Amino acid sequence: MEPVSEKIISHIDDVIDRDLERHLGRLRELVRQPSISYTGEGIAECAELVAGYFNDLGCDPVKIYETPGHPVVYGERWVGAPKTLLVYFMYDVMPVKDDPWTVDPFEGLITSEPPYPKVLMGRGATNSKGPMGAFLNAVEAIQDAGETLPVNLIFIAEGEEEMGSKSLYGFVKEHADMLKRADAVFMPMGKQERDGGTLIWPGTKGIVYLTLECDGKTLGRGPRDYNIHSSLKAIADNPAWVMIQALASMTTPDGNRALIKGFYDDVKPPSDKQKELFKAVVDEVSLDAFRNSLHVDNFIGNESKIELMNRFFFQPTLNIDGISAGYTGEGSKTILPYKAIAKIDMRIVPDMDPDDIVSKVRKHLDDHGFEGIQMQANNLNPPCDTDPDAEIIQAAVRALRPFGVNAKVWPRNMGFIPFPIFSGPPLNLEFCVAGLGHGERAHGPDEFFVIEGDGKVKGLREIEKSFVRVLYEYASTVKRI
Amino acid sequence: MEPVSEKIISHIDDVIDRDLERHLGRLRELVRQPSISYTGEGIAECAELVAGYFNDLGCDPVKIYETPGHPVVYGERWVGAPKTLLVYFMYDVMPVKDDPWTVDPFEGLITSEPPYPKVLMGRGATNSKGPMGAFLNAVEAIQDAGETLPVNLIFIAEGEEEMGSKSLYGFVKEHADMLKRADAVFMPMGKQERDGGTLIWPGTKGIVYLTLECDGKTLGRGPRDYNIHSSLKAIADNPAWVMIQALASMTTPDGNRALIKGFYDDVKPPSDKQKELFKAVVDEVSLDAFRNSLHVDNFIGNESKIELMNRFFFQPTLNIDGISAGYTGEGSKTILPYKAIAKIDMRIVPDMDPDDIVSKVRKHLDDHGFEGIQMQANNLNPPCDTDPDAEIIQAAVRALRPFGVNAKVWPRNMGFIPFPIFSGPPLNLEFCVAGLGHGERAHGPDEFFVIEGDGKVKGLREIEKSFVRVLYEYASTVKRI
Repeated sequence: MEPVSEKIISHIDDVIDRDLERHLGRLRELVRQPSISYTGEGIAECAELVAGYFNDLGCDPVKIYETPGHPVVYGERWVGAPKTLLVYFMYDVMPVKDDPWTVDPFEGLITSEPPYPKVLMGRGATNSKGPMGAFLNAVEAIQDAGETLPVNLIFIAEGEEEMGSKSLYGFVKEHADMLKRADAVFMPMGKQERDGGTLIWPGTKGIVYLTLECDGKTLGRGPRDYNIHSSLKAIADNPAWVMIQALASMTTPDGNRALIKGFYDDVKPPSDKQKELFKAVVDEVSLDAFRNSLHVDNFIGNESKIELMNRFFFQPTLNIDGISAGYTGEGSKTILPYKAIAKIDMRIVPDMDPDDIVSKVRKHLDDHGFEGIQMQANNLNPPCDTDPDAEIIQAAVRALRPFGVNAKVWPRNMGFIPFPIFSGPPLNLEFCVAGLGHGERAHGPDEFFVIEGDGKVKGLREIEKSFVRVLYEYASTVKRI
Repeated sequence: MEPVSEKIISHIDDVIDRDLERHLGRLRELVRQPSISYTGEGIAECAELVAGYFNDLGCDPVKIYETPGHPVVYGERWVGAPKTLLVYFMYDVMPVKDDPWTVDPFEGLITSEPPYPKVLMGRGATNSKGPMGAFLNAVEAIQDAGETLPVNLIFIAEGEEEMGSKSLYGFVKEHADMLKRADAVFMPMGKQERDGGTLIWPGTKGIVYLTLECDGKTLGRGPRDYNIHSSLKAIADNPAWVMIQALASMTTPDGNRALIKGFYDDVKPPSDKQKELFKAVVDEVSLDAFRNSLHVDNFIGNESKIELMNRFFFQPTLNIDGISAGYTGEGSKTILPYKAIAKIDMRIVPDMDPDDIVSKVRKHLDDHGFEGIQMQANNLNPPCDTDPDAEIIQAAVRALRPFGVNAKVWPRNMGFIPFPIFSGPPLNLEFCVAGLGHGERAHGPDEFFVIEGDGKVKGLREIEKSFVRVLYEYASTVKRI
């Protein structure tokens, strides 16, 4: 392994210092372009914007691939390097209308958010237009410094991450030969905690997301077509009660353990390597920092850190994302609702299988007399684990050290990032999500991404420089056959 | 008891025949004036409209009384008759925005709704601007025929019936001396079923309506201020799960029996008179007609008619009117909601006490570990029973016979009509709700009131004529000391 040339790096860093204001403009431009995958708002325009960036970087070809859902933007920057990195972006963001935003989510506002003197506040700022913009700026800076990229790059930007990456697997299968030229996959994210620490996950939980519906028509009892007067509860069944009873039957009274038969059967105990990572990491975690960041006074059952972290990494969840029926406005509208809707998600761990979990939920409902509740799967994504010693992961760890940041390798990501699409067949590529920087309130109101940090959390300048190093560090490792 | 003069009645009927189109205009005018008590929309304007009608009828005084809520419109038409009837109206209506209306709810549309050649479709058409307009027309017709009213009339129109008549009791107490001059209370309603039958209720169930809220702040666990990412379910409590579990703990799995301790303790068994009325009525009821009218395929547990009717008259209910938390739109927004809201109502029977029921619900929540759920009472209205042999009830029964309609006296109203406000202290007046005519979808979309019937159900012409007869029949009974 040849060491990275600090002279080259230093030259590129100067370019970043010089162009930082212009670079920030790209992040703001991305946030200002709405791209809400649920509604489709701005998706086409955002895909064009991203394709334009790929063109500006000299990619060839650049192509917007249509899919059954939203397009995948593809760009290839081939420089004849021995190694090739596939860079994964998402250009879509979550809806905003149900959240109490105090600022315009699409203004690209630069403001302060103590202790950070400068943040970008808006939908997608941290998840994940900020990091995407920063990575593209880093690539641009290398070239603006007159250097050749140390690795070939294949860019993929998908527009459905927030909807569960529905079309991405089909895209990957269809274009497997093209994508197999990559040696690994990297996703840039601002992954520092408030205390400056950062995490890399060699694996991810999967997700099963279901919509449940209950109405008088499919129940065969209760109002069929519209809400009726609540006095009729005396003789008529209430689909909202049935939904509530069905949901309640799925968990313990605290809502914290699933009572679905066989739900935990396929939970794989952590491997020795995972136990080792877990042990090393648990000591580093601050529950207080977690609580402060999330605005949560107490976690489940006031359990110890080790118990909570065990849940976080190795246990599946059964969450209710939403429920609605009837009237919940001001005052007292007296109705018996004809319909109830609920959304639940399950974060699953190896070796749980999405289809198997769906069957178990269905069986649970049927066994408990809730055959009349309809169920539809919105997302079915498997979990996966990858090798913590993978080159791309180790390159990322090395790339952050010069910034005083010692990345921790955690056993597994607790959300879902579409690792399995790349780490499973047909590509079988190692996958790494990493980066300096920090943001909060992803999926919530007043989402932000730090532009100027507080010393512990790094700002845009260091983030871009760290991405430059990721590429050089990865290039410096020996290509495996 | 002197018989009613058929000559006088016939003369008044001619006036109704002559003026029917103009009379219909009043009903449309009332529907066209929104008066949504929840939002306050159009309330002031509707109160003015009603006061104008009272003035047109020669009432003196006419006054719009302010209350802590919406105004009560008062009018007095004193003709020196030996008996005085207090006529109760409500001028408010339910909201419309959550219902899938296929017509403009405030257009005052005249259309057909088979088998009825002519109906008035709009919010409040049947509940209860149609009947109110018809009654005012009937009074006008008596005077237009050159007759003196057979009884003195005191009109009260409240604007908060759909919110539980919150200010009415205070108004009655404050003006008890003025109102005590009445001998009985009458509320005009279009109460024919599709088969032409009609009902009179000497009593009513009461109602307790509660709003429940659960959030991370009051729970002391789960997200405090905003929705967080659903992967955090691994370590964070979910206020929506807590709400669902709390609600589920209150009923059997079918949602049809309350499990709140002591809920049924004070249910009074039916009296002999009520049993007699019940027996007579049950044979007349058609479950099929009920099912068709309500769009309900099967009633609770496929019970027999006698069981269902027993529930209807004599058993309390625990209904869920609405619930909402998190996201229930398209697709899969992955959040852990910080807050859940639910609305429940309980229809209570003598001798259940509203305050006692609220305490029992609170105790249930606390005993089951749901101390963190907040509870607010929107409505607290007691039930009551009145004498089925009351003069005003018997007068109404006699008044409908000439139209071929044999009114059934049912044991009790299953919704809530503010009987207790008048039948309890300080007024202690007998109360009757009655009238020909038919409407459907009260509180729902495309609410309508029949203007031209199908022979079985009477139209506006006969409705107005029947109200004329109610006044003459009531006048013909001996005034009690």
